[in-house]
Amino acid sequence: MDSVRIGLLGCGTVGTQVARLLHEQEDDLAARAGARLSLVGIAVRNVQAPRDPVIDRALLTADARALIAQSDIVIELIGGIEPARTYILDAFAHGASVVTGNKALLAAHGPELYDAAAAANVDLYYEAAVAGAVPVVYGLRESLTGDRITAVLGIVNGTTNYILDEMTTRGLSFDQALADAQRLGYAEADPSADVDGLDAAAKCAILASLAFHSRVSLDDVHVHGIRNITADDIASATRHGYVVKLVATARRRRRGIEAHVGPTLVPRNHPLAGVHGPFNAIVVEAEAADRLMFYGRGAGGAPTASAVLSDVVAAASHKVSGGHAPRELIYADLPVLSPDQSESRFQVEVDVEDTIGVLTKVASVFARHDVSISSVWQDAEEKVVDATGMPVCRLTVTTHVANQADLEATMEELDESPFVSGVRHVIRVEES
Amino acid sequence: MDSVRIGLLGCGTVGTQVARLLHEQEDDLAARAGARLSLVGIAVRNVQAPRDPVIDRALLTADARALIAQSDIVIELIGGIEPARTYILDAFAHGASVVTGNKALLAAHGPELYDAAAAANVDLYYEAAVAGAVPVVYGLRESLTGDRITAVLGIVNGTTNYILDEMTTRGLSFDQALADAQRLGYAEADPSADVDGLDAAAKCAILASLAFHSRVSLDDVHVHGIRNITADDIASATRHGYVVKLVATARRRRRGIEAHVGPTLVPRNHPLAGVHGPFNAIVVEAEAADRLMFYGRGAGGAPTASAVLSDVVAAASHKVSGGHAPRELIYADLPVLSPDQSESRFQVEVDVEDTIGVLTKVASVFARHDVSISSVWQDAEEKVVDATGMPVCRLTVTTHVANQADLEATMEELDESPFVSGVRHVIRVEES
Repeated sequence: MDSVRIGLLGCGTVGTQVARLLHEQEDDLAARAGARLSLVGIAVRNVQAPRDPVIDRALLTADARALIAQSDIVIELIGGIEPARTYILDAFAHGASVVTGNKALLAAHGPELYDAAAAANVDLYYEAAVAGAVPVVYGLRESLTGDRITAVLGIVNGTTNYILDEMTTRGLSFDQALADAQRLGYAEADPSADVDGLDAAAKCAILASLAFHSRVSLDDVHVHGIRNITADDIASATRHGYVVKLVATARRRRRGIEAHVGPTLVPRNHPLAGVHGPFNAIVVEAEAADRLMFYGRGAGGAPTASAVLSDVVAAASHKVSGGHAPRELIYADLPVLSPDQSESRFQVEVDVEDTIGVLTKVASVFARHDVSISSVWQDAEEKVVDATGMPVCRLTVTTHVANQADLEATMEELDESPFVSGVRHVIRVEES
Repeated sequence: MDSVRIGLLGCGTVGTQVARLLHEQEDDLAARAGARLSLVGIAVRNVQAPRDPVIDRALLTADARALIAQSDIVIELIGGIEPARTYILDAFAHGASVVTGNKALLAAHGPELYDAAAAANVDLYYEAAVAGAVPVVYGLRESLTGDRITAVLGIVNGTTNYILDEMTTRGLSFDQALADAQRLGYAEADPSADVDGLDAAAKCAILASLAFHSRVSLDDVHVHGIRNITADDIASATRHGYVVKLVATARRRRRGIEAHVGPTLVPRNHPLAGVHGPFNAIVVEAEAADRLMFYGRGAGGAPTASAVLSDVVAAASHKVSGGHAPRELIYADLPVLSPDQSESRFQVEVDVEDTIGVLTKVASVFARHDVSISSVWQDAEEKVVDATGMPVCRLTVTTHVANQADLEATMEELDESPFVSGVRHVIRVEES
């Protein structure tokens, strides 16, 4: 095989960079793949639309199906569920391998696609779907196959990481930081996929499936966004040695897999604490390897195109010299735990009456629900009054690892206790 | 193929963990490889020696050649050049794939081994040879094949990283920190392979070869150890916002590859600055992906065994279902630059007479040799006298990127200048 025919679906920011690099790095890529990678067409909705000058307009076509039919490898970068799903199944039916960056599609329809790829004996690669240029899909799918993974913790959304960074370093409110991010083009006009954690949740589902050899879908991931994080929360975290990050967590527990996305207190000396702005990082904890981290740019045209092209080289070298991508491995078939069953350290703020003995009363509520307290801070500076104007004392309680249902029961009982005027702001706490 | 026969050569710290994990994770590994991984023997020098109870003594044999002859995959963990080299060639001759952690052998005889593996159409894997559990060999060999790498910077030696950490955080001298490291078992009785940078240099050669698709041997790597780093150097670095790290650097320059190991000033906000103690990290810079980092435990029985087993699973799955490991790629065939031709930012300490206009004289020497100065500090606190007891003024000069030969010529001229009483301590400076 002298050349491998590449069909590119979509020509946005990433697609344009893929086309550029396929051309600029032609000789390098050929040496690595064992054959020329020949871009035979670029399917777009509007052939007439203006394009970056690096795009050879002669390659543009509106007929995606015809392009797919003449490709050995199809790169799907149109995003969304349909027609992406149909195009990918179509590619498999024609014996083409597929490289995609479509996390939403994988999180929603992964099993169908994996099965179709295996049945057609072709490859499905998707490094670009999680954390841009960071090779964590390779990490989990290929390079950590000799170990038993116990947890995956990721900062996988650059927009929220930028917003939380700005809140931390400049003391901005969430709304101010979001407005800045929108002005600078780091956040969409409708920011909900990012700030409500949905983008991170799709990536969490993919990471959990790979790490634990089980099927975890988007619906299995419990999601909290960062809209409710206040400048006060950030200031309190900083005072106590933590950084607030939106963390996607997948953890193997005795009875199954825990998968959630939410704002999390990360100790300042944790490797994730130093991940700023547009960078992403994924910490993998494994029984023998202990803690690993993969770090890099989580988005952007060129970094994401780098991940796409690595997948293209791998798929092409299989076309040339045999072998195939790792198939979906779901032998472990672990159940996904409901949020109730999940376990974590938590931090809670409780406003209580300012009387002697109140701490004992609060502690006994936690104890009654089997939630063990790790520390209690009472910030002397914080002057707080309750709804009736009475001064209250604000306790910041950090727990040891506790069951979430137990914690919720604790909160409920506290909320109904006469010595408590308010329970607010529950946040997960990561171990250092 | 129902089962893949594994022959283990060597039963030290890593070998013992490999044997343990092959047994404990038997079902997981079989599901991933597509066949049982059956440990058929462990070759050791002394069959009678005491062993960890996890070792099945019935597997021990003193006859490595016989074990190799009945293995599908040979794991070489005996280290050193011979007999490791002969055993590996022997394994290839028998059609077995090889997994090794032997960086010294690869840095010295890599080409011979790669050629023999390719000729026999079997795999040579060596993830464990660089940075323990950190999957950087996979990263360079398989997951970054779609990009053009421009630099690899690694903290790849835990012993020196521990010593420099102790000097930094506790203000110890090199000798004190080394003695502590030896007492705690982090450094050998003869520490020269670590502190003189030779271990890091072997890894540097491997990383450079992979990153730049060229052959870089141990002899090509210019090495400086950390014996001459003083507590003063560390204190000065800290004052100026740097951390001293032993960095293995491989960089693509216009005319070829630069490869060196030496103490380096790393800006405090650089991802390598936060890598402490036994952890290793490798920063990869690539044209499209920008900066990536791989981080994890660089040594230890279980973490290194994790890397070995991932390689075993990959080699086994090729035995079962076809395909093969990436072959050595040396198509770029770039020359390795001599130290003279290498480029870097540098920091130099110059003791000068305390007179008006001396700074201009110093600056003009740098300018004459085309070395551009980025900053000059004069530490007011430092009271320094020269050999005759005259007070002198200590300048810390940091340059922009300069040619090393030019810098050396600058140093020489300064050393002979009447207004200079001493030039000491040249150290590389990394960009943030």
